Amino acid sequence: MTDHTMTHEHTGVAAGSDHSHHGYITDKDKYLNRLKRIEGQARGIHKMVEDEKYCIDILTQISALTSALEAVALGLLDDHLRHCVVDAAKLGGPDAEAKITEASQAIARFVR
Amino acid sequence: MTDHTMTHEHTGVAAGSDHSHHGYITDKDKYLNRLKRIEGQARGIHKMVEDEKYCIDILTQISALTSALEAVALGLLDDHLRHCVVDAAKLGGPDAEAKITEASQAIARFVR
Amino acid sequence: MTDHTMTHEHTGVAAGSDHSHHGYITDKDKYLNRLKRIEGQARGIHKMVEDEKYCIDILTQISALTSALEAVALGLLDDHLRHCVVDAAKLGGPDAEAKITEASQAIARFVR
Amino acid sequence: MTDHTMTHEHTGVAAGSDHSHHGYITDKDKYLNRLKRIEGQARGIHKMVEDEKYCIDILTQISALTSALEAVALGLLDDHLRHCVVDAAKLGGPDAEAKITEASQAIARFVR
Repeated sequence: MTDHTMTHEHTGVAAGSDHSHHGYITDKDKYLNRLKRIEGQARGIHKMVEDEKYCIDILTQISALTSALEAVALGLLDDHLRHCVVDAAKLGGPDAEAKITEASQAIARFVR
Repeated sequence: MTDHTMTHEHTGVAAGSDHSHHGYITDKDKYLNRLKRIEGQARGIHKMVEDEKYCIDILTQISALTSALEAVALGLLDDHLRHCVVDAAKLGGPDAEAKITEASQAIARFVR
Repeated sequence: MTDHTMTHEHTGVAAGSDHSHHGYITDKDKYLNRLKRIEGQARGIHKMVEDEKYCIDILTQISALTSALEAVALGLLDDHLRHCVVDAAKLGGPDAEAKITEASQAIARFVR
Repeated sequence: MTDHTMTHEHTGVAAGSDHSHHGYITDKDKYLNRLKRIEGQARGIHKMVEDEKYCIDILTQISALTSALEAVALGLLDDHLRHCVVDAAKLGGPDAEAKITEASQAIARFVR
């Protein structure tokens, strides 16, 4: 993981502030709820293996979890393109190029 | 989820027995450890969104988690083919056919 | 590519014989028709790039082609499990083990 | 398929003109060569099924073809982000939003 966020941490100056550091996540609560559910799904799969449930049923739950994760990733990626990439594009220059390269690499990790 | 496991529950007769009901998972502890780590990864991603970490870094963690889940699924599927499907194949008949169909459908859910 | 088929070539002894060497493909004509269509799709995508059609439309055609290929792969894999793997399972021994390992590796190549 | 390209056809007015209609494909010949090879791979798979080659070998070739297609798709998508999306972002407005939505949907078709 990179430390892209480092410089941004300083912006959260107000005590108790929970405002958006990156500010690109359009509906943070929606993501937090989905990720809470994903944690529960992961815990459920652990329990199924512990209880030695039927293999195919475990696989069904794993593919449901994988789909839920992909939906979160696609949502975050859309937000990222819509905000970070668009903002960089407006400024132009090598920074815009770098943002696109970074986004393309992230996409490739999900496709391959 | 189906109730395939129902008839198998009866086989775990001995008190305190934690022996394998389905008996097809070759290295249960390995899976339990991996799934514990997966739960931790899911929790870490929730925290990253809460802290509004850089989007691309979150995506990197989600793709790592997806890969970890796929590795577990492929391991379980291999165990399933090696035990349940092979056993059914030896007996033959419609049950063997049904097991293959079920396995193929599980595979399709991961490929598509 | 391996030369698994080598020993099988000898079995097609009768002149003009077009019988199945591997005999596991349940509906060969269906696959041949689908693959003819897939060749046409590939040719169409080449033409779209040549004519510099709109990028998103080209991507739509590529994902349609990828789905068509996955459907063929899943069909062949099902046939393979249903015939080669089941036959090996009935005989048992290291050959059965090797067939499962080989099938699992083929599945992994489509999932990852 | 949409008819986005319709209005662009008119721009290729000069006889023998092979200039880029969309102009976003950075290395058209590279893509045309890759797609020629992909057509050849599709033809080869058809031949393998016709000759009833070993199923696992056919699956290996299908996954190689799928990977080749994904590489083309990722390349085109990168070009698309780098040109069409960046240009739309600079202009801003609903058109920029629509371009991002369209790109996200194209990405989703490859991930799911």
